Amino acid sequence: MRDDPVAYHKKLRGKIFVQSKVKHVGTREIRLIYTPGVAKVCRKIFSDPTQRYLLTSKANNVAIVTDGTRVLGLGSIGPDAALPVMEGKSVLYREFGKVSAFPICLNTQNKQKIIETVSNIAPAFGAINIEDIETPKVLEISDELQQRLDIPVFHDDRQGTATVALAALINALKLVKKRIDRIKVVIVGAGSAGYGITELLKFAGCKKIIVLDSTGTIYVGRTKNMSKYKHRIAKITNYKKNQDLAEALVGADVFIGVSGIKGLLKENMIKSMNRNAIVFALTNPDPEATPKVAKRGGAKIFASGSYRYKNRVNNAIVFPYLMRVILDLKIRQITPKILYATALAIANTIPKEKLTPNNIIPAVGNPKLQSAIFRRLKRV
Amino acid sequence: MRDDPVAYHKKLRGKIFVQSKVKHVGTREIRLIYTPGVAKVCRKIFSDPTQRYLLTSKANNVAIVTDGTRVLGLGSIGPDAALPVMEGKSVLYREFGKVSAFPICLNTQNKQKIIETVSNIAPAFGAINIEDIETPKVLEISDELQQRLDIPVFHDDRQGTATVALAALINALKLVKKRIDRIKVVIVGAGSAGYGITELLKFAGCKKIIVLDSTGTIYVGRTKNMSKYKHRIAKITNYKKNQDLAEALVGADVFIGVSGIKGLLKENMIKSMNRNAIVFALTNPDPEATPKVAKRGGAKIFASGSYRYKNRVNNAIVFPYLMRVILDLKIRQITPKILYATALAIANTIPKEKLTPNNIIPAVGNPKLQSAIFRRLKRV
Repeated sequence: MRDDPVAYHKKLRGKIFVQSKVKHVGTREIRLIYTPGVAKVCRKIFSDPTQRYLLTSKANNVAIVTDGTRVLGLGSIGPDAALPVMEGKSVLYREFGKVSAFPICLNTQNKQKIIETVSNIAPAFGAINIEDIETPKVLEISDELQQRLDIPVFHDDRQGTATVALAALINALKLVKKRIDRIKVVIVGAGSAGYGITELLKFAGCKKIIVLDSTGTIYVGRTKNMSKYKHRIAKITNYKKNQDLAEALVGADVFIGVSGIKGLLKENMIKSMNRNAIVFALTNPDPEATPKVAKRGGAKIFASGSYRYKNRVNNAIVFPYLMRVILDLKIRQITPKILYATALAIANTIPKEKLTPNNIIPAVGNPKLQSAIFRRLKRV
Repeated sequence: MRDDPVAYHKKLRGKIFVQSKVKHVGTREIRLIYTPGVAKVCRKIFSDPTQRYLLTSKANNVAIVTDGTRVLGLGSIGPDAALPVMEGKSVLYREFGKVSAFPICLNTQNKQKIIETVSNIAPAFGAINIEDIETPKVLEISDELQQRLDIPVFHDDRQGTATVALAALINALKLVKKRIDRIKVVIVGAGSAGYGITELLKFAGCKKIIVLDSTGTIYVGRTKNMSKYKHRIAKITNYKKNQDLAEALVGADVFIGVSGIKGLLKENMIKSMNRNAIVFALTNPDPEATPKVAKRGGAKIFASGSYRYKNRVNNAIVFPYLMRVILDLKIRQITPKILYATALAIANTIPKEKLTPNNIIPAVGNPKLQSAIFRRLKRV
């Protein structure tokens, strides 16, 4: 019972609330923060809008936006049932990054209406976090919002996942002594995570990336089951053949699974990979392979998103800290360069002497993460 | 300097933030509030949506919505410059009503887009507070939103102001020994406040109400400068003549000013009113008359919204407490009946023996308000 999530939530009755920084509110405080004094603050911002970052909570407010169409592994459960996840995210933002994040659960699943709604509520926020919206809609939404708004738009499923995966990969490659520009990577899943990882690995210098979706490899010239973003994947990965996973994996150095399919990766497929194979089976809660299967296949390093195993590749070691720095440094757009620097900073929190196949990624809540990311992004 | 609002705000850097109820977040907590445990909570709500009131913060979340078109006495200053007011309101909600209220400052001033945007973000909120939007647009917005949504829509400028004004009037009438169904009331201003007060006084049994706007008295048959809501005013007040303020005030018992015009009410006008005249000059920050002018005119009771004078008719003695009760009792629609009961509860917090012409309304933060309103609304 103690560890039943429903009972735990029932006791809390909401995991978050809007807190006031002003305590003991008497006549003096009301005159300062409300009428008549606040009018002076309003006029100050009206005459110089940059003041809103100094005189209001905007600089610290993040909207966690979802339409509930792709929540965890639960699929399209709608905005009401998605709220507990968004609140959970808000808790992690607060507790790890001191970020003030409020859930915005949308009553519409229409792409254009989502873009309009988020644009319309932007003024009180210093950043937008797009969360658990289905692909490819979500990629267009976050891209268009970033073009429209003067605040950063962070798409965690794409950018957070890519960053933590790259951080883990950087450390894994140190252990197997391979260079990122020489490896062959096979990514399964072409949703937000797959697209984000592909984009970021490309930026990081990876030259041989093969991406597969349910139809098979994605390549220039494929016509079935394509989208604007799959066309981009085809272009930047520059792959030419139609293969299935087993075929694509032959001679690969790295497998990255964001497929949503439990047990997709088989022992014999891993056996066909290069020596010192790296397996990141990131589908939650049930990965593409267990550590057991990976070991039997001869993989040198295994990581997953699961709490049951070592090497937890979890967005929560990225988003609270990265957002804190984005807000503090007033970063307007979250580029691959920023994500790459963040991944490097995360990877480097594990000193060489502590780096082992079962310790390639820091734990959630690692106290070094915040300052490491801040120091590195200050230089980007 | 200590009491300079801008310096005060600069030091605070935002008056509010989203706080977590979960502290010391470790692996166990993450598994309960985020992945994988939260999935169970999501599924629970998906199969039984009423559970969202028990398992999330929805039951305590209020959106303070503005488009910045009518902020304080500042006019249309836009969503950015309006944010300090909305945050101030959030502080009062929190400190007096333990309500979790988040500012939603809208990047659009289009009526239909405001309605759509607020409808779209409703799922995470237990109530909507409409704030500082220009009339008559705001009346249509709050009415249409209330029809569309399954959560209460509170329009403070209309409903909060009306409630506190009625509370003050109830006590003032006790002092001058007049009955509400026998008095003649002149209301100047037909915006949100004027409309709300008219509606509520009518509900409270007031039979003779004259409402004026900048054009003069509002009556059935007037054609100039009318709106849907002014037609309703004409209908419920059932007044027939075209008069200016001086003419309308002759023989009146009560003046209620929500005109936005400093010094509008002159000594000689008050002199033309009935004996034991009641003057509520509610325009902020500079009322329609000062206590001095009211006294010279022979008024028995004077009240205003200003902190400079006694009898402060301030919404802050209504909205935090009323919203608390609305949320706790799951009230779906805020009717005149509810506002009337609230006004009675507020009026009665001042016991007979303490009721004087300079003490007709409790102070902001009066500890009796919450339980008084709760007890009375439980019976409505």
